[in-house]
Amino acid sequence: MKQLKFQLKQLADLLNAEMIGDPQYKVDSIATIESAEATDLTFVASEKYEKYLADTRAGIVVLSSSAADKFGGNKLLVSNPYLAYAQLSKIFDPRPRRETGVHPSATVAETAKIAASASIGANCVIGENVVVGENVEIYPGCFVGEDSSIGDNGLIYANVSLYSNVKIGKNAVIHSGTAIGSDGFGFAPGKDGWTKIHQLGGVTIGDNVDIGANTAIDRGALEDTVIEDNVIIDNLVHIAHNVKIGSGSAIAGCVGIAGSAVIGKNCTVAGAVAINGHIDIADNTHFHGGTIVTKGNAEAGIFASATPMMEVKQWRKNSVRYRQLDDWAERLKALEKVQKNKD
Amino acid sequence: MKQLKFQLKQLADLLNAEMIGDPQYKVDSIATIESAEATDLTFVASEKYEKYLADTRAGIVVLSSSAADKFGGNKLLVSNPYLAYAQLSKIFDPRPRRETGVHPSATVAETAKIAASASIGANCVIGENVVVGENVEIYPGCFVGEDSSIGDNGLIYANVSLYSNVKIGKNAVIHSGTAIGSDGFGFAPGKDGWTKIHQLGGVTIGDNVDIGANTAIDRGALEDTVIEDNVIIDNLVHIAHNVKIGSGSAIAGCVGIAGSAVIGKNCTVAGAVAINGHIDIADNTHFHGGTIVTKGNAEAGIFASATPMMEVKQWRKNSVRYRQLDDWAERLKALEKVQKNKD
Amino acid sequence: MKQLKFQLKQLADLLNAEMIGDPQYKVDSIATIESAEATDLTFVASEKYEKYLADTRAGIVVLSSSAADKFGGNKLLVSNPYLAYAQLSKIFDPRPRRETGVHPSATVAETAKIAASASIGANCVIGENVVVGENVEIYPGCFVGEDSSIGDNGLIYANVSLYSNVKIGKNAVIHSGTAIGSDGFGFAPGKDGWTKIHQLGGVTIGDNVDIGANTAIDRGALEDTVIEDNVIIDNLVHIAHNVKIGSGSAIAGCVGIAGSAVIGKNCTVAGAVAINGHIDIADNTHFHGGTIVTKGNAEAGIFASATPMMEVKQWRKNSVRYRQLDDWAERLKALEKVQKNKD
Repeated sequence: MKQLKFQLKQLADLLNAEMIGDPQYKVDSIATIESAEATDLTFVASEKYEKYLADTRAGIVVLSSSAADKFGGNKLLVSNPYLAYAQLSKIFDPRPRRETGVHPSATVAETAKIAASASIGANCVIGENVVVGENVEIYPGCFVGEDSSIGDNGLIYANVSLYSNVKIGKNAVIHSGTAIGSDGFGFAPGKDGWTKIHQLGGVTIGDNVDIGANTAIDRGALEDTVIEDNVIIDNLVHIAHNVKIGSGSAIAGCVGIAGSAVIGKNCTVAGAVAINGHIDIADNTHFHGGTIVTKGNAEAGIFASATPMMEVKQWRKNSVRYRQLDDWAERLKALEKVQKNKD
Repeated sequence: MKQLKFQLKQLADLLNAEMIGDPQYKVDSIATIESAEATDLTFVASEKYEKYLADTRAGIVVLSSSAADKFGGNKLLVSNPYLAYAQLSKIFDPRPRRETGVHPSATVAETAKIAASASIGANCVIGENVVVGENVEIYPGCFVGEDSSIGDNGLIYANVSLYSNVKIGKNAVIHSGTAIGSDGFGFAPGKDGWTKIHQLGGVTIGDNVDIGANTAIDRGALEDTVIEDNVIIDNLVHIAHNVKIGSGSAIAGCVGIAGSAVIGKNCTVAGAVAINGHIDIADNTHFHGGTIVTKGNAEAGIFASATPMMEVKQWRKNSVRYRQLDDWAERLKALEKVQKNKD
Repeated sequence: MKQLKFQLKQLADLLNAEMIGDPQYKVDSIATIESAEATDLTFVASEKYEKYLADTRAGIVVLSSSAADKFGGNKLLVSNPYLAYAQLSKIFDPRPRRETGVHPSATVAETAKIAASASIGANCVIGENVVVGENVEIYPGCFVGEDSSIGDNGLIYANVSLYSNVKIGKNAVIHSGTAIGSDGFGFAPGKDGWTKIHQLGGVTIGDNVDIGANTAIDRGALEDTVIEDNVIIDNLVHIAHNVKIGSGSAIAGCVGIAGSAVIGKNCTVAGAVAINGHIDIADNTHFHGGTIVTKGNAEAGIFASATPMMEVKQWRKNSVRYRQLDDWAERLKALEKVQKNKD
């Protein structure tokens, strides 16, 4: 286990924060403000939690100057407490680094280049010409196909499958069960049925990309599927062939992005959104959860399509009306015409 | 192969059912009423199947007293034939138990405690301080991270990934490809992009929980993600960090539950439902398939949001009208006003 | 690496195409018309790309006779350029065949029958009575349960889990992370909660079936879940127990099909569609993306249910109106009645 005790002063230095209290006061974990004890640090990132400051038993609180007076104990003043919490979460993470070196049960091709500081877990299989960078950790049961690469500091959890010709930048995190480089869903229809279009492209993933569990990213048909730097992707996301996701965009869980869609930079795609293929989404576009995106947009905006939830009785009635909506509109127009003729 | 022949009398004893027929009559499997042969048992769980009773060739039929007269052969009378079928399905299941002990190709940490009656499959990797209970079966290729535990009688199918600090109760079933304990999707936005919030909580799963294939359950940010006793979860379900699912609830396939949502007890969530984060769903709530749940509910109810399916021509027309819906409503109000002034 | 240089004449023979140009001209890959260089072949499958023909640097272009005059270089004339591209993609695919034989780290039951030409990758686990056909390639980390079979030429990528009693025809492609044969989501409700219905059926998959990554196909409750010949299935698709999918149908990413649904032949199901259980879908039915299919259809058609995407402001207003839709319809009817009485 890592040593996880930190003094108020250490934390202030790390956050470049103003410190009030005992510089040597130690905490060993982070907790919510309601459950924190004397050995915990907590934080207040929104006004609605300030009411708990009077009674919290937290040993250290990270908060903004404006709320400083509401807590009498050890505290760290920062401009963005939520970001400070994110920064501190890293040092309080108890995850031990995997042992350096190649586990004896792993199968590594002779032409693969594995950095001496990397860790290749049990039963991993690393193909020809693969390059694994410094400090990379690959958990057990992962497969890395030929000609693929994982940049420095990559963290690949158990049972991940990376196909051939998948290039991953630095500082990647990829969670269990995710497959990258699977074939795009390309088939040519003909009179004898579907003819498979072999997918000859690969996948290129930038630096600082975080990918959740059981996500699938297909290889490109001719060129690469591209995920740019600083993109974050959640669990169970489907990214089809030739998709391009611009830097800084965030893709939440259960999203599906069809082939050749281009998502701009700094977009946020909420959960369960489905994005059509062959469309372009402008930078800084935001989609609400459950949106069915059938068309691209040239200018940034916030979009939604989901219908409101109702009690089933009301929903059934409205569903009947929705089927008739065009008819109702025509009847309303007819009434307006009658009215107009009378005026 | 297990011995799967059972006599009418044995089955009657097991179900505590009234028996009519030859007590020694034997069947060796369960079949649908339409395809059953003399060596099969079948059951009638709803009135619409009673019409097949006259002609079925089944060796034994499980049915309710009210339908008993409609079948002349060997029969078992029970109050709930569907539940009786479920109970019998267990003894007719041909799945052989995995061999007890640790497969020589598995990698087990010295500090792990594996019950003598447990089975650890080929290429499994079991981390430090893991506890595996009595009669647990872990199929090949599974990963269990440090400090995790699997209660007695757990059944973990191939290629499951359990991260560190994942606590699973007794009698669990977890299907292939499922990942439990992956990082929650937590990132703090800042002027330099996303800063990862390390997920310091774990996952706590109660007793008698059944989890399907390729599902993902994230670890909590600070405290545990919690699945209570007797919860059943289908395939390809996304359960985000800090979610809590109350005991007895059922979550069907392709459901996504966003972070910090709290689902009550005995809820049923049909397929492809998406549930927003930070909302509370009351006990005994039921969601129809495809519902986008944006708000919580304080009282039980049955809810839906999906719009009705239409032929594309009609759908296109209605879609245009839906975009204009508020405008139509305003026009209708205007007409009503004119009408009122005239009266 | 495979030799990937082909002469114009070889390609003409393969496609049975008319050839214009230097029969010995060689290309070594396929590229898009905009990026193709002298060593690349490209194709024009729709009119909108014909404008690039004047300036493309491609060494060979596959196109239809009607567009032949627009390109002066080496060319192949075919009736269906897109299908020709699919056919050529196969020979330009650089994927090397896996080494024949059983990897020493694999665990293969003595009763399993593995064809001499098959390849069983590292850490694969093959159960009792499994049959693996000629030229089958199984990538590392796959599990194949007892009594299952994989027909000739099957290609199973890394970390696939096939349960027991899963029968797969010839020429299958199955991508990483996919689970086939997991339990159907069957539970009988009772006063003590859910009683699991053991799933006694298996899965039968026909010839020429292509299945994407992280998809899940459940075994049947009593009989088999059935995927017929020539079906293509994308990533993250959920196919529940007892489902039957007719030959030639295509199921795109993120689709969920609930239990006992029967999909006809040659249907196309676009992305993120959810299909209810116990319904029959006619042959040649097409569903637009995001459709919630609650009812079956007896005759072919094109169906949709998704609502149009809007800017959030407009969406909020229309959402309010949609909740009131039945009320608006009643008010319109009342106005019509007043009007009628006046006439």
